[in-house]
Amino acid sequence: MFLVVEFMLQHISEALKREVGIIPVSKHRLMKHLDELARIGSNGEEGITRLAFTREDLQARERVINWAEEMGLDVRIDDISNVFARRKGSRAYPVVMVGSHIDSVTNGGSFDGSVGVVAAMEVIRALEEDGINTDLPVELVVFACEESSRFGCSLVGSKYLTGCLKKEELARYVDNNGVSILDALAGCKFNKKYCLSNGVFEKEKIKAFIELHIEQFDTLKEKGLPIGIVDTIAAPTRFRITVKGVSSHSGATPMFARRDALTAASELVLAIEGLGRAEAEKHTVATVGKIEVKPGNVNVVPGNTTMLVDIRGVDYNSKHRVLKGMEDFIAFLTKERKGISIELETLSDEQPVNMAPEIIRLAQETCSKMKVEFQEMYSFAGHDAMAMAKAVPTGLILIRNISGISHSPKEWVDPEDIYTGTRVLYEMVKQLALL
Amino acid sequence: MFLVVEFMLQHISEALKREVGIIPVSKHRLMKHLDELARIGSNGEEGITRLAFTREDLQARERVINWAEEMGLDVRIDDISNVFARRKGSRAYPVVMVGSHIDSVTNGGSFDGSVGVVAAMEVIRALEEDGINTDLPVELVVFACEESSRFGCSLVGSKYLTGCLKKEELARYVDNNGVSILDALAGCKFNKKYCLSNGVFEKEKIKAFIELHIEQFDTLKEKGLPIGIVDTIAAPTRFRITVKGVSSHSGATPMFARRDALTAASELVLAIEGLGRAEAEKHTVATVGKIEVKPGNVNVVPGNTTMLVDIRGVDYNSKHRVLKGMEDFIAFLTKERKGISIELETLSDEQPVNMAPEIIRLAQETCSKMKVEFQEMYSFAGHDAMAMAKAVPTGLILIRNISGISHSPKEWVDPEDIYTGTRVLYEMVKQLALL
Repeated sequence: MFLVVEFMLQHISEALKREVGIIPVSKHRLMKHLDELARIGSNGEEGITRLAFTREDLQARERVINWAEEMGLDVRIDDISNVFARRKGSRAYPVVMVGSHIDSVTNGGSFDGSVGVVAAMEVIRALEEDGINTDLPVELVVFACEESSRFGCSLVGSKYLTGCLKKEELARYVDNNGVSILDALAGCKFNKKYCLSNGVFEKEKIKAFIELHIEQFDTLKEKGLPIGIVDTIAAPTRFRITVKGVSSHSGATPMFARRDALTAASELVLAIEGLGRAEAEKHTVATVGKIEVKPGNVNVVPGNTTMLVDIRGVDYNSKHRVLKGMEDFIAFLTKERKGISIELETLSDEQPVNMAPEIIRLAQETCSKMKVEFQEMYSFAGHDAMAMAKAVPTGLILIRNISGISHSPKEWVDPEDIYTGTRVLYEMVKQLALL
Repeated sequence: MFLVVEFMLQHISEALKREVGIIPVSKHRLMKHLDELARIGSNGEEGITRLAFTREDLQARERVINWAEEMGLDVRIDDISNVFARRKGSRAYPVVMVGSHIDSVTNGGSFDGSVGVVAAMEVIRALEEDGINTDLPVELVVFACEESSRFGCSLVGSKYLTGCLKKEELARYVDNNGVSILDALAGCKFNKKYCLSNGVFEKEKIKAFIELHIEQFDTLKEKGLPIGIVDTIAAPTRFRITVKGVSSHSGATPMFARRDALTAASELVLAIEGLGRAEAEKHTVATVGKIEVKPGNVNVVPGNTTMLVDIRGVDYNSKHRVLKGMEDFIAFLTKERKGISIELETLSDEQPVNMAPEIIRLAQETCSKMKVEFQEMYSFAGHDAMAMAKAVPTGLILIRNISGISHSPKEWVDPEDIYTGTRVLYEMVKQLALL
């Protein structure tokens, strides 16, 4: 991956030199910063693992803090370890906020989240290089723990900032080793000088939040468009499902006498897939991302199987049909498979979220002025913008993903599109911060 | 579990006192020894975890060594850490060997294996108390690593003794942490004085091997018989199957575009169950005991799934139909589910094994003389007797399992049946060791 970046940087360096003089946003710097972040938590071909609050996650956030300090920004960290870096305006408030996250899934790619953070930094640097003194402060934010991969809870930083996740709830979410968000947070040692005096950022003083993020599928690629302007984000409903049977000897237990928790669970996995497939037209998706079997020995019929289910959609009725279908199938399955019981625990249940019309309009106008082709679209992936939208006017701009894939080492985005997205973001921020 | 044992011991103590004077085999001692072993590696209601070569396994084997020394037996340990304890005969060779194993599965019961070891000890103690000097030595054996739970390889100790498993193969089998049998063995520190001078027990000097074991299903319970005399043991054929797809974002990837390794694997799990069910009449069984998903995050469509499959039968054609059916289904599945590839690795492939006709006859005659009801039967569970049968005349006696279940904390056997089985074993050993 890194060799390709180096090759591309050299390949386009001449063109870049010409550009840098004209447009303050630097493609070269964007890719250089992205590449530096991509080295933290990298496992080569296996991709990047930078789970929230791990050593790698902290290292990446410290890197961003260093960059922010080099730019002379005012860095602060709140109670949940969201990182803020402010370029002053002539007024103290309200701020225009831009950013995303830099934690990753297990074996993820190097663009998911990082692009939005690096682009936000580049916007601030470009304002500086352009010599533009804005009326309102422009604030970079790096949200903590956006991915649900470690704790089964997503958007932790942005939900905490907007009051959707309370301090007392942080002990409830635990990782595979039984470490809670609260425990993990206690291990996050940042320089005390950054810590907010009251521990909490004042969300009331935010004029708007804009997140730039890669698309996590191939919609823009297929349509040949570099930019997507999101109007609605599909929110996940998540379950932990435990299938209980009876563990017994794999040789001595005849087929008819088994209470196999894995074969029962496999029927449920396929039912969930089928229910999702039936709603293809309405874009609802249903996934079993994790399954665990106990005792998990080759010579024991499984007595217990646990799975994590993720169901998302932008259409309420369609998503509801999948949820209802799953419940009906569970009832059917426990009736038909004797000796099997199934427990369903709802981990989260969120509704689709709309972006602010004024920010959507601003994005459209900016793209049109810049002659950047775009389309309005849904986001089926969740983003910090979803939590922020509940508290402040929020926008989400997606960048074309030429690999068409995310949460995978195969994730790949064209530097030209990252550059285009950052230029759009720069213009939007300028519009919002200059009164 | 322990409270029940204590209650039962008290409950029957009066009857025992009367008995001990008449029959040298002591039900009280059998249950006391079983209970002591059951405390090693116990997790209360979760059952017993005493995986091969772990601290718990060694502790249990050291307990048996202590008991053997108390009885004045000659204790020795071979290269694979099989434990032998010999009561001398008037001749030095050949020996009559009795025993089983004391390693367990994850969350297993307290009778599987242990009953055979405790009964063999009791047989030797009864010979001593009965004042019987046998012509041939009687030898207790505690085989190492009978269960496949840790290394995916079963009957390690008995296969090694009989030359079916070579020293150079021991590095090939590894546990979940990458520790090989060879590595684990290096960590097994026994008192040097026990170690065999040439490191290997001489299997040529064994006249016969008899294993007493609990039944691992409810055949005897259903028929109301305390004892089963095995004529054939069904041997497992085992596979590791890897299903490869493409990991991608669980929200952003539409259903039609997925290459989901878990949903494909779920079809295979159900196909394997179905193929086993179709052979119910021929008693072939097929199990997926373990499944692992990567990356295993709630928000990622699984890109990789690995499973362990165990197929057993006593009928060659029936077992072959299941194996062939599985291969055919894999071909069908990879054709129908685009972007999915499946790799099949054979871990072991064994044929059904017959017990020695002369030992079967001896068992039948002994039971008849003692007026103990029995039936000839298959064993669908594998046992050390399977490996031993390839080298020496071997018999396998099963004891009724009143829980009808094994490899589970629910496993339960009536003390009366253990007592009956041990008395049968005692009489058989006497017959073989007195010329």
